[in-house]
Amino acid sequence: MRHNYTSPSNRLPTMFAPRSIKHCRACGAEVQYLVPVDDNRDRATCTVCTTIHYENPLNVVGTLPVWEDKVLLCRRAIEPRRGLWTLPAGFMELGETTAEGALRETVEESGAHVELEPLFSLINVVRVGQVHLFYRARMVDDDFVPGPESLEARLFAEDEVPWDEIAFRTTKKTLELFFADRRAGRFGFHAADIA
Amino acid sequence: MRHNYTSPSNRLPTMFAPRSIKHCRACGAEVQYLVPVDDNRDRATCTVCTTIHYENPLNVVGTLPVWEDKVLLCRRAIEPRRGLWTLPAGFMELGETTAEGALRETVEESGAHVELEPLFSLINVVRVGQVHLFYRARMVDDDFVPGPESLEARLFAEDEVPWDEIAFRTTKKTLELFFADRRAGRFGFHAADIA
Repeated sequence: MRHNYTSPSNRLPTMFAPRSIKHCRACGAEVQYLVPVDDNRDRATCTVCTTIHYENPLNVVGTLPVWEDKVLLCRRAIEPRRGLWTLPAGFMELGETTAEGALRETVEESGAHVELEPLFSLINVVRVGQVHLFYRARMVDDDFVPGPESLEARLFAEDEVPWDEIAFRTTKKTLELFFADRRAGRFGFHAADIA
Repeated sequence: MRHNYTSPSNRLPTMFAPRSIKHCRACGAEVQYLVPVDDNRDRATCTVCTTIHYENPLNVVGTLPVWEDKVLLCRRAIEPRRGLWTLPAGFMELGETTAEGALRETVEESGAHVELEPLFSLINVVRVGQVHLFYRARMVDDDFVPGPESLEARLFAEDEVPWDEIAFRTTKKTLELFFADRRAGRFGFHAADIA
């Protein structure tokens, strides 16, 4: 069933808003932020039915699609960072693995046809409560049709990458690690944190 | 501020209950599961203020603590799987990295003093909407005092591991990968899926 409510935050890296829960999802009554008896931090707790609402980090999953010596970037059609370039990625959904989510987002945002390769980077972005996971991906052809969240998609050689117009630091970090590994002749798995 | 509400699901791998949101966290009104106009799946959407409530997988972070030729397991004091053995792990919290969460859970559940080593396993558990991440960890001494969620903690050589009494398949898989890598003389990073 479709309707007209917009979902502006879907798939966008947005700041989490801690302590933003006002009402209980089970009964609708007001919540208070309290430390449950066997816990060690505030949780939104229903003042009527005592349901506890946890708030936890989310995973953003995507790929680094490669065709010959080039990488595929998408130019964002949506906020935040509209007009800037990014790797195809978005929030992991229930019912899928990290790899399945990365593949889904790649298709949705870039329209590329890819075969996933091993997980390449895991980057904590603590400030926004996110963990970004990027898989390397082999493009099986150079046909791609960007989806509605992208203004365009384009292949870039290393010396063509628009480094000053990259939307997110996790994209920039993943690209830097990729080109460094390629120069070294060996792709590894990389973990990193962004403050 | 402490109070008497219990938090039975804290840190426990529990089934996610899809479509369990009944009321809006912003205004308390009823939600309906509808596909937002620029989305492709049902989301709990407030019938009054149109807030959209996303439900996404959660990360469980933990360690595989090693002392000499032995690994440290904790016997669970809480449901599910009370009385069975597990690696120290729990839900990642806002405000921490995956590594910081893994270290925190290790201290809380086992009381062990460890130095984290690289991420060792990432295991999707799609059925429960979770991604489990285990770091190898070097115990700096063999003093450990299990926390309230553990009945006991104990060091096991490979031939002592209680394979039939392991609480979770992600623990079992991580231990199997660890002993296989140790026999091979090289520790890698492993990704796996559990149906």
